[in-house]
Amino acid sequence: MAIKIGILGYGNLGRGVECAIKQNPDMELAAVFTRRDPKQVSILTKTASVCHVSEASDWQDRIDVMILCGGSATDLPEQTPAYAKMFNVVDSFDTHANIPAHFENVDKAAKAAGKVGIISVGWDPGMFSLNRMYASAILPNGKDYTFWGKGVSQGHSDAIRRIEGVKDAKQYTIPVETALEAVREGRNPELSTREKHTRECFVVLEEGADAAKVEQEIRTMPNYFADYDTTVHFISEEELNRDHSGIPHGGFVLRSGRTGWEAENSHLIEYRLKLDSNPEFTSSVIIAYARAAYRLAKEGLSGAKTVFDIAPAYLSAKSGEELRASML
Amino acid sequence: MAIKIGILGYGNLGRGVECAIKQNPDMELAAVFTRRDPKQVSILTKTASVCHVSEASDWQDRIDVMILCGGSATDLPEQTPAYAKMFNVVDSFDTHANIPAHFENVDKAAKAAGKVGIISVGWDPGMFSLNRMYASAILPNGKDYTFWGKGVSQGHSDAIRRIEGVKDAKQYTIPVETALEAVREGRNPELSTREKHTRECFVVLEEGADAAKVEQEIRTMPNYFADYDTTVHFISEEELNRDHSGIPHGGFVLRSGRTGWEAENSHLIEYRLKLDSNPEFTSSVIIAYARAAYRLAKEGLSGAKTVFDIAPAYLSAKSGEELRASML
Repeated sequence: MAIKIGILGYGNLGRGVECAIKQNPDMELAAVFTRRDPKQVSILTKTASVCHVSEASDWQDRIDVMILCGGSATDLPEQTPAYAKMFNVVDSFDTHANIPAHFENVDKAAKAAGKVGIISVGWDPGMFSLNRMYASAILPNGKDYTFWGKGVSQGHSDAIRRIEGVKDAKQYTIPVETALEAVREGRNPELSTREKHTRECFVVLEEGADAAKVEQEIRTMPNYFADYDTTVHFISEEELNRDHSGIPHGGFVLRSGRTGWEAENSHLIEYRLKLDSNPEFTSSVIIAYARAAYRLAKEGLSGAKTVFDIAPAYLSAKSGEELRASML
Repeated sequence: MAIKIGILGYGNLGRGVECAIKQNPDMELAAVFTRRDPKQVSILTKTASVCHVSEASDWQDRIDVMILCGGSATDLPEQTPAYAKMFNVVDSFDTHANIPAHFENVDKAAKAAGKVGIISVGWDPGMFSLNRMYASAILPNGKDYTFWGKGVSQGHSDAIRRIEGVKDAKQYTIPVETALEAVREGRNPELSTREKHTRECFVVLEEGADAAKVEQEIRTMPNYFADYDTTVHFISEEELNRDHSGIPHGGFVLRSGRTGWEAENSHLIEYRLKLDSNPEFTSSVIIAYARAAYRLAKEGLSGAKTVFDIAPAYLSAKSGEELRASML
């Protein structure tokens, strides 16, 4: 019997979850819940329903795990605790500084309801966090580095779009190759913000806008660009749509550490992601953890969990025997 | 109160475990057990005892986790089930084909005694296995690749040493860079044994030995070298000791997979290790899992476990709160 999945919110992430379910024969999409008029929302899975969010509570017996695909700024802080009262849930809450508070809220709600709530699933937080944790447990005498990119930063692209005279924009975060190499060589460099990443912007101007002024505003924008070496390219709307419509991302987690009685030996652990589609990869991680949420709940567990709390085998459709025989 | 560790077998791996304990303030080495005369074995930790293996059973109340540092061919198949009757144990059993049988034997012994036995810990099996498993759970529509090296293969070095006329030898396994690149580019190549790795041998000849004959014997040795492009260098004993005394290793686990409704997007997950000392890194992984064995036993669990069965947080000296605040 397949694990029945619900999707709350049908944007890029929700569609990614739908696609990921298709690749996992032990899962099926039961319903998509939307704040829009369900009649206006067309999904890809012919066998699944589209419902208004207000109907979600009627689906408690028909959904094993609800995937919460809202944003971290305002949606998830409310939604995850609320839906954990009714469903096993998985979210991709990614405001790192607020994770402890979010965990507590979800834990309280999920425990009271006897549900499992897995929070902050994806790649960062998510697989990158796991790799930081494994690597630091293995090499306690060491140093961590996380590089992001090359990839599209939605937040930085939005920041450019809010500048007067900008019609559209895409911003790529790019790791500095020489910094990466210095880490790989075990040199344990101290790296400033500017030394780790550069920012490349592709901007479509409104008719008659002042390019020099826009470029100056981008380069000097505090927090977003002022601390980075930033390149700005002005291109046409056609070029932007043709060459920059994807949502690629990725990055590197590295730990360089030493072992030996006198710390005489050096080691490098490197984890790298190169992703054509940020939301589809995030969704793929989420769906693996949805399997874990289902199994943990079946075992009678409840409360908030993170990727740190879940044994890897729970993510796989294979049995323990199969995993030991084929992957160990 | 520190976790009290015992080491059974004081070779490269046992010494690595001793060094790893030094880096983890929540652990202490209680005793090293050896088949040799304990008086002849000098260890680095002044506060720990050196005992004959026959005394191990007297230490059941003074050791929380016993690390079994024997070989996979003949030692561990006997030792791990035997010692799991007395101690929580961790081993690095690495004969992949025999893991299922070993698991069953350890599981039976450990369950009967109420002990935890974590088997096949290290980097392959171990961290590489984990990365194969996580990546395949996330990207079910994909293909796995494992490359080893550049590193010293003990088995291949030994095979060369057994050839008549060879005084000493070191063999390096080297991944083929173009094959790695083809995988990284998402081309999902079908790779033969020869296309994945090359083998480089540094050989010291006995006085008067026939170099051409030795080289021919190496190149044509079935299983070990015949299926590979092999380079043989004849060097002096001084050069071997000066340039090839280390035990470096490492390698790459890659998974290339596709997502999207029509599998239109491609992703790459890459995990890489670059290790100065194979046994010291293996030991460092073992010690992190020793912490897990201790905690699992405290929770009342018993039986055989592998890296797939253990939630990552159990490996870290940090608490759940600390991990969520600092690493998620």
